[in-house]
Amino acid sequence: MAGAIEAKLQELGVDLPVAATPAANYVPFHVSGKQLFISGQLPLIAGGPEFKGTVGSDVDVDTAQQAARACAINILAQAKAALGDLDRIAQVLRLGGFVSSAPDFTNHPAVVNGASDFLVEVLGDKGRHTRFAVGVAALPLDVCVEIDALLAVE
Amino acid sequence: MAGAIEAKLQELGVDLPVAATPAANYVPFHVSGKQLFISGQLPLIAGGPEFKGTVGSDVDVDTAQQAARACAINILAQAKAALGDLDRIAQVLRLGGFVSSAPDFTNHPAVVNGASDFLVEVLGDKGRHTRFAVGVAALPLDVCVEIDALLAVE
Amino acid sequence: MAGAIEAKLQELGVDLPVAATPAANYVPFHVSGKQLFISGQLPLIAGGPEFKGTVGSDVDVDTAQQAARACAINILAQAKAALGDLDRIAQVLRLGGFVSSAPDFTNHPAVVNGASDFLVEVLGDKGRHTRFAVGVAALPLDVCVEIDALLAVE
Repeated sequence: MAGAIEAKLQELGVDLPVAATPAANYVPFHVSGKQLFISGQLPLIAGGPEFKGTVGSDVDVDTAQQAARACAINILAQAKAALGDLDRIAQVLRLGGFVSSAPDFTNHPAVVNGASDFLVEVLGDKGRHTRFAVGVAALPLDVCVEIDALLAVE
Repeated sequence: MAGAIEAKLQELGVDLPVAATPAANYVPFHVSGKQLFISGQLPLIAGGPEFKGTVGSDVDVDTAQQAARACAINILAQAKAALGDLDRIAQVLRLGGFVSSAPDFTNHPAVVNGASDFLVEVLGDKGRHTRFAVGVAALPLDVCVEIDALLAVE
Repeated sequence: MAGAIEAKLQELGVDLPVAATPAANYVPFHVSGKQLFISGQLPLIAGGPEFKGTVGSDVDVDTAQQAARACAINILAQAKAALGDLDRIAQVLRLGGFVSSAPDFTNHPAVVNGASDFLVEVLGDKGRHTRFAVGVAALPLDVCVEIDALLAVE
């Protein structure tokens, strides 16, 4: 039987993808004590849209927010792979938000809100996190957003 | 009665601002176990100078150090909001220093020293932290420095 | 008597350098509870090659991988200074990989693999970590890679 969080995802029409497996010598997550570390997630969803390019030049804020939401969906997919049950999430403690940014683009917080809003929509207060949002020169596979995460778990 | 750390701030002539409240679905801090996570702080102080631009092109190192110090002041303002009493800080464990950087600027450590020096001045050995300092393409609101923090608390 | 991990380093022909001391008001590491925080390490080894420049323009991926490996060697040097014995490493939990990147370079994961592969070669499964890899505008001293780390320790 799926837990309350997965029921909420269903209600929102979100299917968690199969958690991506790293193609190199690292892991997508570690549980250590009561903390769950999740590797930087890209906005790649099989069969979904591609979120490539640089925000402020060839990607607009609305599209980048959708990309950030896709990163957050992949964070939850990794959390499910790590925990079995998303109801074990006690708190999203921290997101690190990297936005591929034109030098004159300065609204990185609005972009990362795509992830923050989604996590609060799904997890309620347990989804409220600390974060940073910065504009970087380039990201892997030319994606426009990358987000890593630290969660407290039960 | 204010504690020893707040007395030290007074001696230095530093008034902690009211801790900024995020305008979005994230929080400025989380206390989890003995760790205090603080969101990326910008060098914005009501009525204070604006620290905008790119270091190495339109902002010089001295000004950027003042900006980093302003980030550190805001980190302490968040710590006070989180803990009530700054004397509960056991150790500043880690700072993440993001400097808005011209491609040919390479003295990011000197910039972040503006925060590091201030924290050690106020907190003594409890202010000594691990850190990284990197040069990013752009930062929110066009500020020249953003710093997040992790503290151990009692 | 050196432990198993140092024997492995010897077998690989890796001499750990003397751990670098920060030139400013921060520390290279903190042990807090069962976590070891290590400051961002640069690919500088006394007498070794210099790994300077921007990946994708004046530095190629092979060279940048060597730089990332040098960062990982310096991470182990700091871990040895912190722990005395590298056998106390329980798990590398997380690496933060910053690559000085041309705007059109997008293979940051391959670069950071230079560190990830080395840590797994030396530490086995205890070296497998979560990580992020991003492309930044510039790094201290014009190096092409900077990596910080969080380890679980025994």
